[in-house]
Amino acid sequence: MRKKLFVLAVLFLCAGGISLFAQESLESLGFSLDVVWLFIGAILVFIMQAGFALVETGLTRAKNATNITMKNVMDFCFGAIVYWAIGWGFMYGKDALGGLIGTDQFFFSPMSVDFESGNFYKSWFFQVVFAATAATIVSGAMAERTQFKSYLIYTCFISAFIYPISGHWVWGGGWLAELGFHDFAGSTVVHSVGGWAALMGATVLGPRLGKYVKGADGTTSVKAFPGHNIPYAALGVLLLFFGWFGFNGASTGIATVGGGGIWSGLNIARVCVTTCLAAAAGAVSAMIFSWIWFKKPDASMTLNGLLAGLVGITAPCAVVSPGASIIIGLIAGILVVLSVEFIDKVLKIDDPVGAVSVHCVCGIFGTIAVGIWANAPEDGVLGLLHGGGFTQLGVQFIGILAVGAWAALTSLLLFLVIKATVGLRVSAREELVGLDLSEHKAEAYAGFQIFSNM
Amino acid sequence: MRKKLFVLAVLFLCAGGISLFAQESLESLGFSLDVVWLFIGAILVFIMQAGFALVETGLTRAKNATNITMKNVMDFCFGAIVYWAIGWGFMYGKDALGGLIGTDQFFFSPMSVDFESGNFYKSWFFQVVFAATAATIVSGAMAERTQFKSYLIYTCFISAFIYPISGHWVWGGGWLAELGFHDFAGSTVVHSVGGWAALMGATVLGPRLGKYVKGADGTTSVKAFPGHNIPYAALGVLLLFFGWFGFNGASTGIATVGGGGIWSGLNIARVCVTTCLAAAAGAVSAMIFSWIWFKKPDASMTLNGLLAGLVGITAPCAVVSPGASIIIGLIAGILVVLSVEFIDKVLKIDDPVGAVSVHCVCGIFGTIAVGIWANAPEDGVLGLLHGGGFTQLGVQFIGILAVGAWAALTSLLLFLVIKATVGLRVSAREELVGLDLSEHKAEAYAGFQIFSNM
Amino acid sequence: MRKKLFVLAVLFLCAGGISLFAQESLESLGFSLDVVWLFIGAILVFIMQAGFALVETGLTRAKNATNITMKNVMDFCFGAIVYWAIGWGFMYGKDALGGLIGTDQFFFSPMSVDFESGNFYKSWFFQVVFAATAATIVSGAMAERTQFKSYLIYTCFISAFIYPISGHWVWGGGWLAELGFHDFAGSTVVHSVGGWAALMGATVLGPRLGKYVKGADGTTSVKAFPGHNIPYAALGVLLLFFGWFGFNGASTGIATVGGGGIWSGLNIARVCVTTCLAAAAGAVSAMIFSWIWFKKPDASMTLNGLLAGLVGITAPCAVVSPGASIIIGLIAGILVVLSVEFIDKVLKIDDPVGAVSVHCVCGIFGTIAVGIWANAPEDGVLGLLHGGGFTQLGVQFIGILAVGAWAALTSLLLFLVIKATVGLRVSAREELVGLDLSEHKAEAYAGFQIFSNM
Repeated sequence: MRKKLFVLAVLFLCAGGISLFAQESLESLGFSLDVVWLFIGAILVFIMQAGFALVETGLTRAKNATNITMKNVMDFCFGAIVYWAIGWGFMYGKDALGGLIGTDQFFFSPMSVDFESGNFYKSWFFQVVFAATAATIVSGAMAERTQFKSYLIYTCFISAFIYPISGHWVWGGGWLAELGFHDFAGSTVVHSVGGWAALMGATVLGPRLGKYVKGADGTTSVKAFPGHNIPYAALGVLLLFFGWFGFNGASTGIATVGGGGIWSGLNIARVCVTTCLAAAAGAVSAMIFSWIWFKKPDASMTLNGLLAGLVGITAPCAVVSPGASIIIGLIAGILVVLSVEFIDKVLKIDDPVGAVSVHCVCGIFGTIAVGIWANAPEDGVLGLLHGGGFTQLGVQFIGILAVGAWAALTSLLLFLVIKATVGLRVSAREELVGLDLSEHKAEAYAGFQIFSNM
Repeated sequence: MRKKLFVLAVLFLCAGGISLFAQESLESLGFSLDVVWLFIGAILVFIMQAGFALVETGLTRAKNATNITMKNVMDFCFGAIVYWAIGWGFMYGKDALGGLIGTDQFFFSPMSVDFESGNFYKSWFFQVVFAATAATIVSGAMAERTQFKSYLIYTCFISAFIYPISGHWVWGGGWLAELGFHDFAGSTVVHSVGGWAALMGATVLGPRLGKYVKGADGTTSVKAFPGHNIPYAALGVLLLFFGWFGFNGASTGIATVGGGGIWSGLNIARVCVTTCLAAAAGAVSAMIFSWIWFKKPDASMTLNGLLAGLVGITAPCAVVSPGASIIIGLIAGILVVLSVEFIDKVLKIDDPVGAVSVHCVCGIFGTIAVGIWANAPEDGVLGLLHGGGFTQLGVQFIGILAVGAWAALTSLLLFLVIKATVGLRVSAREELVGLDLSEHKAEAYAGFQIFSNM
Repeated sequence: MRKKLFVLAVLFLCAGGISLFAQESLESLGFSLDVVWLFIGAILVFIMQAGFALVETGLTRAKNATNITMKNVMDFCFGAIVYWAIGWGFMYGKDALGGLIGTDQFFFSPMSVDFESGNFYKSWFFQVVFAATAATIVSGAMAERTQFKSYLIYTCFISAFIYPISGHWVWGGGWLAELGFHDFAGSTVVHSVGGWAALMGATVLGPRLGKYVKGADGTTSVKAFPGHNIPYAALGVLLLFFGWFGFNGASTGIATVGGGGIWSGLNIARVCVTTCLAAAAGAVSAMIFSWIWFKKPDASMTLNGLLAGLVGITAPCAVVSPGASIIIGLIAGILVVLSVEFIDKVLKIDDPVGAVSVHCVCGIFGTIAVGIWANAPEDGVLGLLHGGGFTQLGVQFIGILAVGAWAALTSLLLFLVIKATVGLRVSAREELVGLDLSEHKAEAYAGFQIFSNM
């Protein structure tokens, strides 16, 4: 009897051991799957740099094409290094001052992070591409007249300080996170931060020469400078759309079920569907609206409408229904056309590619949209239309105002300091010649016959 | 003794509980991995929109470049919304009329689908990019002379009705699926549907002005309009090749082993290898064949040969050997050159980019190839050369004829109705000026010196 | 009692069965995840073909744009077929001659490989894109003056013989692997092999007409031929950066934990971080160095600096720290500028895109870097600065010399044989007209006004 029990016990322990081992490996397998998903997401977000480069190049003039592509390449390169050295620490380091700022892990300080598990590197790689997105938004609004070296100085500051600190408030466990502010993939954290800085930059710089010309009768005529390559712009927008599935889709952080709810792999499918539909709706409404208003389906407005839909759905993509995502996209597409016209014709601020309208205005709208259409009771994110009253909406406004004030004021200060010291704008002669020849001593399209005096 | 047994029983139940729990998590982990693979596939298929846009832009004239890129962007945007509203329901809704049509899940009707699991959204996202592919094929054949608004109307109809209904027959569990028709990733379901519609569209429209000129002696001379940007076309083809690994590779539906056989993650490797080799072989044979025939390695023929290999392997990629895939690619590459010449010189139908030859002709050939080279006994798909006799081949022909008749007749009717109502073609003056200025009031390449009277 | 024991035993066996089953499925799930990761990696490496095509097109003249894109498309297509037929067998077939060469699995011979598991196809698909990378490097150095058919002959030989045989030494379990040579993702195996062949090709061909002009005073003036499309070059570099995350990241071979250490999914995160930082540092140092030297931030030098950082980190990416990766990138960026100037101005070898400097020089540097900065004690890879003494460094030099001698001598012989038989270079008239018209009878940019006599 005892022998039998002994045999049974041994067998049992084997079985138990196997199942415990299986359980352990199951966890590590889940971790590996999460890493794979996050990396695919990060790599997709990375290619958005090419998307931004093409959109901005396509919508500006041929004589500045080398310059704008160089800015888009170099803001990632400088940004990655300063985000390694400083930015990450301010964003995800140990919280201080009651949720205001992170304070360690600078230069990947090995005292504070767990390198062995790969967990830290994994997160940094996903975050650095987001930081680069915020930085690169600005180049479009400041295109065709900004000094190259001044742009590089600026881009280091946004990646090291401006983006990470407000990012800490929301995604680093800071005070806005504590308040319940919801910005799933960064309508506010990434896009409106970039958009506010773009607005400040374009304002401090002033318009391109010949953009707003005062006539003899005192009225100002507004000149349009058409972009030099619409297929570049369209390819850029499609690459952005492509990368955005990583931007929003991998913002669940995991591919496995995890704790369920919003931040679960189960929600990836919803995120991709709402992202897809909002972008489509944004392009459709911007195209129809521009068709009615300007009597033509305007290409650059339509492309900006698609981006507007993407920026608008970035905050709410994980908490709204497909139907709501279409409504959000339709509104964003109309908003971006109105905003581009308002900024250009009324405010007379010269934003060559419409970056402020796409990223700041629609980033704000997308953040508000959470407070209206959110319907994720299991995580307590409920908008006005789904029984949440004005609670979530109020918190969303606090976040928009706080992050907006931070980004606008710090970038305004930064541009004023740069202007007063190294200078922000090229000379009139350099601007007329084009930044390719004046800043880089090389044409973008050697051999092609181009009217460069446009 | 009893105590011992009790302890043992408790320990045992723990072990059992752990292993049951492990099993359950294993299933959810497998589901998560499948979702990740399907999403990567869908995102890869999405970027094929950029590929199509670039191929069509590169192979047509500079004066129509804004128009063709806009069509390629907007057919996805309109297509996504109508496929959400209507198309999905016809394709994957509850079967009716004995396998002819789906009848529910319109507008993501929540009564009929399980939203919680993410399963439904996941499938829709993978399917919408396929629907968009079918729609976008048409724009190339109708390039440089179609009204923008008429194109938009057409594209909504193909995404809402034409593609989903024949798609239901094969992939929605309809009558062709019941018959044993095999089209793994859509040589017929996607490509030949788009190709037939392209043929009907180009025929109803008529050729571009100056394409076929009758001389004084009664003979007709055929003029070639060279594409304005071969690097765009090449980049487009490489992006299509890139995306096709998702198109075919993720058509297994899962990454896990599943039930084994064709529709298993184990088969992904075979699918990618056959896809890669067939595309390579298609480019090689088209290049050599054009070199012999036209005394030069023709760039656009070679690029179309690569696409021909891809379209040809789309149906059989999961059931043939690497060696067979090379043969299929070699044949498709020759077929596309013969077809382009036949349609242009003999039929005198003006298809500016060769879309009918690539997608319709090679789509039909690929579907037949299943009936010849298939060698998947475990799933009962056996071609003529592997002991299947004429059974599979016969079923393949039934599918080709049924889907072809459906797509050709419905799209012919659609184009005739559009022509009779809103009109299909721009005026001769608009065509000569170019669709960029006449339809969108904006050049694609502002500042560049271009001979637009070509 | 016996009955109770029996019941217990039955229950126990069930539990054991479940846990054994779970374990089995866990393994198959892990395998599926590894396959997914490897395929994503391969697909990312594939798009590097588009990156190379765009970089080489952008940095050369408009009159050769069709030719250079055709070469980049066709080297993949021919390469894939010969790597299926011959190359794979030499690289991964059964070892012979003491680690010198593989000897079976030609034409996917089914006698020697396990097709059922998908394992073989999976590995081939990942390897074929690496082989294509080695081959495509050469086209840039030989651009604007090589006969198309000669290029195709060459590319078949590198994919069938040159690359696979030295590849066997390192990655196929050959003699360098036995020695402990470490080249994680191919600084030597892929890049310097391509780079050496590029150097031999450019030398045998001679410079482009008008590149080095002897004046009346006996001095030689060096003419720069500016590239015709900087945005293409920038987009190409960003696509290469994007694809490189697959090139390096998936070179772990697996996504699961596996045996731990370097070749583990846990190391993917480190690989992506070091790859990202080295590329960024390479661009930054090349830009600053060119700015100081040439008084301008040179676009093509900066873009080559980014690629230099990528090539330099390819060997050591899995065994160095983020800090070391930045140092490696900074050095590579300076090295590439010095090398481009040295090869052009001192050696007077005409390498239109800087391929030799990027791939050969920085490939060698990256391989040496392993011997200096490696810090992976768990796998016994330790560089000079981390207690490894000169052991690893010495082995790295042996590998560099052996592979370099092999690649240089075989490709030199190959180019000399081609030159003596079918001919290597186009005629002077064809070169002046441009290879697009002389080799393919089609302009790349029909309708555009271009100064083709540059």
